[in-house]
Amino acid sequence: MKLIIGNKNYSSWSLRPWLLLRMHGLAFDEIRIPLAQDTTREALAAHNQAGKVPVLHDGELTVWDSLAICEYLSECYLSGAGWPASRHERAEARALSAEMHAGFVELRTCMPMNCRASGRRVPISETLEAEIRRIEQIWAQGSKRYGHRGPWLFGEFSIADCMFAPVSFRFASYGVKLSPPAEAYRQTLLRSAPMQEWAEQARAEPEVIESAEVGAA
Amino acid sequence: MKLIIGNKNYSSWSLRPWLLLRMHGLAFDEIRIPLAQDTTREALAAHNQAGKVPVLHDGELTVWDSLAICEYLSECYLSGAGWPASRHERAEARALSAEMHAGFVELRTCMPMNCRASGRRVPISETLEAEIRRIEQIWAQGSKRYGHRGPWLFGEFSIADCMFAPVSFRFASYGVKLSPPAEAYRQTLLRSAPMQEWAEQARAEPEVIESAEVGAA
Repeated sequence: MKLIIGNKNYSSWSLRPWLLLRMHGLAFDEIRIPLAQDTTREALAAHNQAGKVPVLHDGELTVWDSLAICEYLSECYLSGAGWPASRHERAEARALSAEMHAGFVELRTCMPMNCRASGRRVPISETLEAEIRRIEQIWAQGSKRYGHRGPWLFGEFSIADCMFAPVSFRFASYGVKLSPPAEAYRQTLLRSAPMQEWAEQARAEPEVIESAEVGAA
Repeated sequence: MKLIIGNKNYSSWSLRPWLLLRMHGLAFDEIRIPLAQDTTREALAAHNQAGKVPVLHDGELTVWDSLAICEYLSECYLSGAGWPASRHERAEARALSAEMHAGFVELRTCMPMNCRASGRRVPISETLEAEIRRIEQIWAQGSKRYGHRGPWLFGEFSIADCMFAPVSFRFASYGVKLSPPAEAYRQTLLRSAPMQEWAEQARAEPEVIESAEVGAA
């Protein structure tokens, strides 16, 4: 398998399937396409018609979009273990993942992922505040409901954790304060070996024009 | 099952799981919450913490978000038949669905769904034009690749069709011209009995403040 991603420092969408692959120790090659360059559009178009990262090539099959790639990996390489085993929890994990996938527009706009950045501050609008509190609620509920099984949103690691992982970097850059259980979950993400690997590689990337969401989906 | 939706005239996200339920003849109760009213926020909050429509209640389970509800229905009520049967096609259908779920922001902003509206025109920016052409490409590819099996994006009706269904109403309101194969697919959507039922019920709704995306996810 070959995973096409954007800059590790900026491409929040790329991080999601990469994290699923790494957490499950699946073998894959990685191709990084620098975003927001003159050559970006052409480079992306060579990989799929949607013209965005991430893209997964598996033999003749091309799958794009962070969530769709995670679904594919779970189904074809993890015997469904990308999601919680219980039907009820799986439905909830998909709902949370989809909520993140299409929502939190203000957060994504005002607090772009930049693994290298710290000490940033932005005005917190009412909408942004509500989005931050919703994420705090989701993260805190995880430990309350499933904490006896493990530290992830549904106890064991799942695709839902992949979907929220980039937010842990965003909150670090922008100094967002969280309730203790939500912060504990954030630390679980940040301290995991794959997230530390990602952050280290992001820091080692050359500087480019900052544009966290360009070409992302 | 109980499906909570917004106004049929405006709530593009509500249409998606509603269409899947109707196309498969699944029984459900429907509750409509008028969007963009003083009472909307409270009414939505009573149904789920994300505060958005659509929401599905199935016994004690609450599932929200258009895509997550469709996944749930496919898995639990359709033996997986919400998606194409082939693994390859299923991956592609999920990629297209996810692309629509999180993307086409310009289209959704500039051409809100309004089943009653016609003759509208808006300036076509470069971004909007690119999004329209991408949809045209997706719709035309369906008949090219799978037209021998049926008129839908993957031959037989699937969740991918649910995800793109609202766009057929948008293009009608805003007079968007399409290539013949893309237009043929649009007509397949618009002429289907459930879509005609939805449009008729949308036209019969009382006028409210127009806000196609409020409370939607």
